[in-house]
Amino acid sequence: MDTLPITPRTRLKRGHRKANYERETIYQILDEALVCHVGAVVNDHAMVQPTLHWRIDDTLYIHGSAKNGLFKALLNGQTACITITILDGLVFARSAFEHTVNHRSVMLYAQGTLIEEETEKRHILDALMERVMEGRSQTARPPNDTELKATSVLAFPIQEASAKIRTGMPDDKKEDLNLPVWAGIIPYQLVSGEAITDTPKR
Amino acid sequence: MDTLPITPRTRLKRGHRKANYERETIYQILDEALVCHVGAVVNDHAMVQPTLHWRIDDTLYIHGSAKNGLFKALLNGQTACITITILDGLVFARSAFEHTVNHRSVMLYAQGTLIEEETEKRHILDALMERVMEGRSQTARPPNDTELKATSVLAFPIQEASAKIRTGMPDDKKEDLNLPVWAGIIPYQLVSGEAITDTPKR
Repeated sequence: MDTLPITPRTRLKRGHRKANYERETIYQILDEALVCHVGAVVNDHAMVQPTLHWRIDDTLYIHGSAKNGLFKALLNGQTACITITILDGLVFARSAFEHTVNHRSVMLYAQGTLIEEETEKRHILDALMERVMEGRSQTARPPNDTELKATSVLAFPIQEASAKIRTGMPDDKKEDLNLPVWAGIIPYQLVSGEAITDTPKR
Repeated sequence: MDTLPITPRTRLKRGHRKANYERETIYQILDEALVCHVGAVVNDHAMVQPTLHWRIDDTLYIHGSAKNGLFKALLNGQTACITITILDGLVFARSAFEHTVNHRSVMLYAQGTLIEEETEKRHILDALMERVMEGRSQTARPPNDTELKATSVLAFPIQEASAKIRTGMPDDKKEDLNLPVWAGIIPYQLVSGEAITDTPKR
């Protein structure tokens, strides 16, 4: 099993039983989640922005406007902390203290690299299209030169990352198990609905 | 309408049509979303962690272990950037460039304050219980002193925040509208499923 090295900033100090450093586990979470939260230091404070992410092999990609302040900071060498979280359920214990959340999350630290070569950039953006709808990169009008220039694509090597996973029932203390309190899980899931077709007035 | 002041770091520079600074709008997003992503500077880099959040009046709360590195940084005065994102749909345009995401997000900058007074702390934690299940603060066993001490509650005044909202159909350029490409929205929603009862072996 291919496992990532544990570094001081990816070592989970608490809840270590939930930690996972296997590429396969990390990639499954990255590939299932649509939205990530990207943090970096901007003007001496942390800034966190949501964006879509996608993966090709051992690299995570995000894209956005070249004028975006966070992107500028990342291009100036600020380390990104990219966090992806999938909420799987609320966990109700008999004690307030043991209430928790079933979830799968990944935290990735990496330096971003700007993708400049046009063919590579188009190939990477096509992968985003394919991620949201199979075949889409073949049907949608491809970006023209102006559009391609207005889009910055950043690549982050997946080398320093950890997953954190919590599943299953609450961990009540033995002495709480007989309390007359309902305990269990309310599952949560992000689901897609029926497609709605755009019918613009012409 | 009560509107928050716009500051250099909450002013949306791009997509400004999507910006919203009204408390009511911001609070609706905060109250609907269960998970936030909290960023702060830790050891000279940004760190982003997911956690539950909840609101009472004009204050946002998070809780966690006092041993958490991010919490320590926040208690040492690091400004938090707390970002909350609700994904509402994927938006498919006729051009690759105009593909986008319907979403509602809030970005809050604030300094955290540790809640130390016991009655206040219990009251605030009860509000979290009530948020995830009505009446729960009355049924679950309340935290004992050890449990209460192990839980840090941080308060963030909602003063410097902005919402960003994107709704509706794609904004294709006029010349793209007749391309033979399906365009529209695939809606997304976080839904809860049937509760699963914990039946531990005794």
